[in-house]
Amino acid sequence: MRKLAVLTGGGDCPGLNAVIRAIVKSAHGYGVEVLGIRDGFRGAVEEDFIPLSLKDVSGILPRGGTILGTTNRDNPFAYPTKPNGVIQPLDRSEDVLENLKNNQVDALLAIGGDGSLNIALKFANKGLKVIGIPKTIDNDLMSTDQTFGFQTAVDTAQEALDRLHTTAESHHRVMILEVMGRYAGWIALYAGVAGGADVILIPEIPYNLNRVALSVQNRAKQGKKFSIIVAAEGAKPLGGEMVVERMMKGRIDPVKLGGIGAKIARDLEEHYGLETRVTVLGHLQRGGSPNAYDRVLSTRYGTAAVDAALEGEFGVMVALQGKEIVRVPLQEAVDHIKLVPLNNPLLVAARTLGMEFGD
Amino acid sequence: MRKLAVLTGGGDCPGLNAVIRAIVKSAHGYGVEVLGIRDGFRGAVEEDFIPLSLKDVSGILPRGGTILGTTNRDNPFAYPTKPNGVIQPLDRSEDVLENLKNNQVDALLAIGGDGSLNIALKFANKGLKVIGIPKTIDNDLMSTDQTFGFQTAVDTAQEALDRLHTTAESHHRVMILEVMGRYAGWIALYAGVAGGADVILIPEIPYNLNRVALSVQNRAKQGKKFSIIVAAEGAKPLGGEMVVERMMKGRIDPVKLGGIGAKIARDLEEHYGLETRVTVLGHLQRGGSPNAYDRVLSTRYGTAAVDAALEGEFGVMVALQGKEIVRVPLQEAVDHIKLVPLNNPLLVAARTLGMEFGD
Amino acid sequence: MRKLAVLTGGGDCPGLNAVIRAIVKSAHGYGVEVLGIRDGFRGAVEEDFIPLSLKDVSGILPRGGTILGTTNRDNPFAYPTKPNGVIQPLDRSEDVLENLKNNQVDALLAIGGDGSLNIALKFANKGLKVIGIPKTIDNDLMSTDQTFGFQTAVDTAQEALDRLHTTAESHHRVMILEVMGRYAGWIALYAGVAGGADVILIPEIPYNLNRVALSVQNRAKQGKKFSIIVAAEGAKPLGGEMVVERMMKGRIDPVKLGGIGAKIARDLEEHYGLETRVTVLGHLQRGGSPNAYDRVLSTRYGTAAVDAALEGEFGVMVALQGKEIVRVPLQEAVDHIKLVPLNNPLLVAARTLGMEFGD
Amino acid sequence: MRKLAVLTGGGDCPGLNAVIRAIVKSAHGYGVEVLGIRDGFRGAVEEDFIPLSLKDVSGILPRGGTILGTTNRDNPFAYPTKPNGVIQPLDRSEDVLENLKNNQVDALLAIGGDGSLNIALKFANKGLKVIGIPKTIDNDLMSTDQTFGFQTAVDTAQEALDRLHTTAESHHRVMILEVMGRYAGWIALYAGVAGGADVILIPEIPYNLNRVALSVQNRAKQGKKFSIIVAAEGAKPLGGEMVVERMMKGRIDPVKLGGIGAKIARDLEEHYGLETRVTVLGHLQRGGSPNAYDRVLSTRYGTAAVDAALEGEFGVMVALQGKEIVRVPLQEAVDHIKLVPLNNPLLVAARTLGMEFGD
Repeated sequence: MRKLAVLTGGGDCPGLNAVIRAIVKSAHGYGVEVLGIRDGFRGAVEEDFIPLSLKDVSGILPRGGTILGTTNRDNPFAYPTKPNGVIQPLDRSEDVLENLKNNQVDALLAIGGDGSLNIALKFANKGLKVIGIPKTIDNDLMSTDQTFGFQTAVDTAQEALDRLHTTAESHHRVMILEVMGRYAGWIALYAGVAGGADVILIPEIPYNLNRVALSVQNRAKQGKKFSIIVAAEGAKPLGGEMVVERMMKGRIDPVKLGGIGAKIARDLEEHYGLETRVTVLGHLQRGGSPNAYDRVLSTRYGTAAVDAALEGEFGVMVALQGKEIVRVPLQEAVDHIKLVPLNNPLLVAARTLGMEFGD
Repeated sequence: MRKLAVLTGGGDCPGLNAVIRAIVKSAHGYGVEVLGIRDGFRGAVEEDFIPLSLKDVSGILPRGGTILGTTNRDNPFAYPTKPNGVIQPLDRSEDVLENLKNNQVDALLAIGGDGSLNIALKFANKGLKVIGIPKTIDNDLMSTDQTFGFQTAVDTAQEALDRLHTTAESHHRVMILEVMGRYAGWIALYAGVAGGADVILIPEIPYNLNRVALSVQNRAKQGKKFSIIVAAEGAKPLGGEMVVERMMKGRIDPVKLGGIGAKIARDLEEHYGLETRVTVLGHLQRGGSPNAYDRVLSTRYGTAAVDAALEGEFGVMVALQGKEIVRVPLQEAVDHIKLVPLNNPLLVAARTLGMEFGD
Repeated sequence: MRKLAVLTGGGDCPGLNAVIRAIVKSAHGYGVEVLGIRDGFRGAVEEDFIPLSLKDVSGILPRGGTILGTTNRDNPFAYPTKPNGVIQPLDRSEDVLENLKNNQVDALLAIGGDGSLNIALKFANKGLKVIGIPKTIDNDLMSTDQTFGFQTAVDTAQEALDRLHTTAESHHRVMILEVMGRYAGWIALYAGVAGGADVILIPEIPYNLNRVALSVQNRAKQGKKFSIIVAAEGAKPLGGEMVVERMMKGRIDPVKLGGIGAKIARDLEEHYGLETRVTVLGHLQRGGSPNAYDRVLSTRYGTAAVDAALEGEFGVMVALQGKEIVRVPLQEAVDHIKLVPLNNPLLVAARTLGMEFGD
Repeated sequence: MRKLAVLTGGGDCPGLNAVIRAIVKSAHGYGVEVLGIRDGFRGAVEEDFIPLSLKDVSGILPRGGTILGTTNRDNPFAYPTKPNGVIQPLDRSEDVLENLKNNQVDALLAIGGDGSLNIALKFANKGLKVIGIPKTIDNDLMSTDQTFGFQTAVDTAQEALDRLHTTAESHHRVMILEVMGRYAGWIALYAGVAGGADVILIPEIPYNLNRVALSVQNRAKQGKKFSIIVAAEGAKPLGGEMVVERMMKGRIDPVKLGGIGAKIARDLEEHYGLETRVTVLGHLQRGGSPNAYDRVLSTRYGTAAVDAALEGEFGVMVALQGKEIVRVPLQEAVDHIKLVPLNNPLLVAARTLGMEFGD
């Protein structure tokens, strides 16, 4: 093992730089070089590489984002190409293999979510030595207890809830916070409990608007003239569709036309006369310095990936299980999305506290 | 002077509790009682009063919001009343005077913005002893250099810009942050400079979209593949209208249909092919603990208002001018909105740094 | 089960109020009353009780400290008493049992560390129905993976390291941060990794000053003119003594005469001519709002303790093991202190990154 | 004007990088080059220069510290030299002039406090074109209303007070926070008011310990079993000496043997039996990202200094007066230290609130 390559794919999240730093520092300790690939698999196709020295990763631990850049449109197996001026997908995967070979890369460390790890798996099946490092701010990746960046996003959402509390109290209003989570409600659940929300709406539990309104009205009867609702962007009404589903069918951009938060606000005002305001946390959840938890987890992932490479174990993803970092087959990690199970202990505890889930 | 009443009106902002605390503590030092009025002038109409002791204000200094509550629909001169089941405005100002008299209130301290201070002025003209304390998160109140809460809102917006920077860099995108400022661009200007924005759009300078796009493109030519735009919610295109104007004509709710940030994003993508994301900071700017600057300013306003009352000077607003807290006629404070002048030193300095204002 | 009592003992830490809130809210859901005991076991001896309603715990989730108060000098089995004007310890444990009985308390929930849980265990052995909830900011309690408050303390220490980094870089200095951890180095280890420290000194690994100085000098040779050292307060030189040991023998107050951080600074300057500055984080680690992680963990502990009480399982402590909250015998929890094992995965990862532990 | 040089001298403080960035960006707008001088005047003596391009200052706005480095031992008029192996001061000022000349530097922008600006003044008197930019975290520089970094330090100290509040309340203790301010009590005064301290001790008002203890005892009588004291490091007892004075006479290092905070704690415990804990904030006040206020002020200082240079006005310092950045003679700025006057409005307001100053 002489040289490792590393790339970051998909949406950015706090801790990417911490992983890159850990990879470079621990590889350096073993006398192994590291080559950075720019903008995810795009750089692998285009041979856009940059050597990463200790100096390059000095001071990046606290910084959000990724020094390597990232993109969502970089699938080498269907690479956006313009042969005749019209964009069409082309299989450029062989170029990737060749570029890595030409640069004496022995193995690839791919930091990414569902999408990037699927691509990584395809390359593994083509014989490339690949190790995956799990990244999704939504925490919805199978086989790992937690992905880095998630806990920082929860902090961010909880701090937003703290802020909304003071303004909700002062104005006697319903305040909705829409957080990330297209398919899984992890951020909404954790931030909702941490931020003391009154109602938590997640994709896994289609909500009955009557129940939500009733909960707000019951609080009002007890003298609490405000309520806080946290809604995952993928929350959906009973019998209705997720925003993602509507998007896929009708090509609606949820950001511009208003997501689920805006819909709930409109519905609460129109059908129940409840003065409601909505805040969409959006990209603020991805940015900023990782918290200590995520820096530690990122560092552990980075060193564990280098260890796996040095021990010659490929086609795997490093994963947190309990207190240990283990290795799981890449295939296993990308097979399904990890949803919040209805018997999740925190969900159950939240119900015990009287939190409303709309069901 | 035996008893003062205090109310908070209009939108909440960080520092309201700090003002209330300073009023109660300094009044207590002079042996003067304080009566709290709930939910702005609504409580004055409805005689919803609560005595404020030292104990009631203990621990509220760091807390956002207002322990007294506030509302926007409380004008006693046009009080929303339902005599026959239909809401119609009724002049209940005499009730206010009577309620205050019945409760032995010697003078009223009104903490509020343009709207509340206008009402306060009308009461002053009816003979009530009134002192105003300037509050507007937008900082657009005349006669005072700064309103409390503004600096905390600027911190919040700047921290959001810091977060967006890391994600913009990683993804090579244009990121727009929409901040408060319906008529005046103070938050956008200060946060834009503090957060190192590339483009700042404020109501006072109608923007030419070509200039904005050109600025983004010039940065890309210099190798900077991302740009950060901060836009006041009242920003408007050259020859176009402010969102507020459109709202007032067509009764459009900007929150639900998308404000100026969403419009700029759409325009940059459609007309210039620039991948753009928008974040609306919204109520997050109002919430949370006031920073040290605002706690100090709030405390000074509170003690200065009590001093004015004890010295028998009424019909005035306490105001910050340079380093001093002075007293200005209430009339003067509500006559106009304080816009960002085109020769504002920070605006000029920002241009010197190469920031684009769209003109 | 009709009525539970709850107390908080020992040093305060972020999350105590979140536990109390969870207990009251979930007990209320089951129709069970909660009685608060003031200042740890002192209140149990003195019958200083206060009923806790939903209203009493409203808004306390984000607040540091404990609304019940706490103290370190409250052991009912050796209660400080002044019968003849001289303080001497008296066994007042029977008073506690009687006071609880007189107030119809069915079971006691004791939130505390080693000391308080030992007392709780003694009461369990006397027949009291007791459930322990683990609290120690040092995270050194056996049988539980993590105590609440620890992760917030790590955040605080990491933020301090971030700050010291910028000043160390600017001045080309060695900066030492002394953090909590009298017997175990958990905070130092986690914060050190999260804050990118160069040297981490923990009680479990006696340090050789030569190794520390060498590490600083090697960095200087590589052009890095500053180094950051994080030291647990219980760190000790090879062959030397912990500050705690010196204290116990000589009754030295480490806070006033300077702890281990000051000693290392002095030694590095005198023996190696390295300009060094020390910061003692102290009580700042205990204060402030708990982060999201600790709010979630505290909430889970609180509901789990109520669940255990309702299921009639006493003499246990609720504990985090992996992802589950389990129940362990109180005896097991207080038998030993949980030290950082030398094969701890994070310790090993930190060594891989090139961090120096002084051995 | 073709080329400016810039240096940062003395202790670091938040905003130094923001000033450097503003200088480089605005100079670039005028087609003027900027040369960075490393480690204050040391780099000027040693010709340790580095050209500063737009790229060098990209991303440094939020970062604490100074990319140029700084030192306190760099006076070119008494430069520490080792001609025969023994350190002795040598006048190397001519080397500075020659180095600047050889590098075609037209004017020097010196960012520094009392010490650095005194050196700058001496160079101005030797004919060098110099402009000073005021920097002192203590805010004790004459002729300017505020120095950058001060407001961030106040935020840091206020946040520490917020943390100590929760722990003081829980434990019924006196908590002391020692903050910066060797000669002037600005940080203690502002942070004390913002953090709701009960007692504020500043160098300008020698304290009577009886008054301090009485204030704590009076609070206890009113049921408040804790008190918060904020003390400037230069606070001194009536008839006693400042720590600085003791240091200068006896060469005592206050950091290692305990500063004024430790002394007050000891005195309160010994003479009044008050359980007291002390926290020394120390270098944490210098580090970290500048807040929005300081970023704006730093940016204004930087552009104003370049403007002055282009307009050919030298031997001056840029200064904030009211809302304007003005130019004052360097001589005026370094003549005296700006102490807190006893009729300072905030001091008076704080007394009105019942805060104790020990007199």
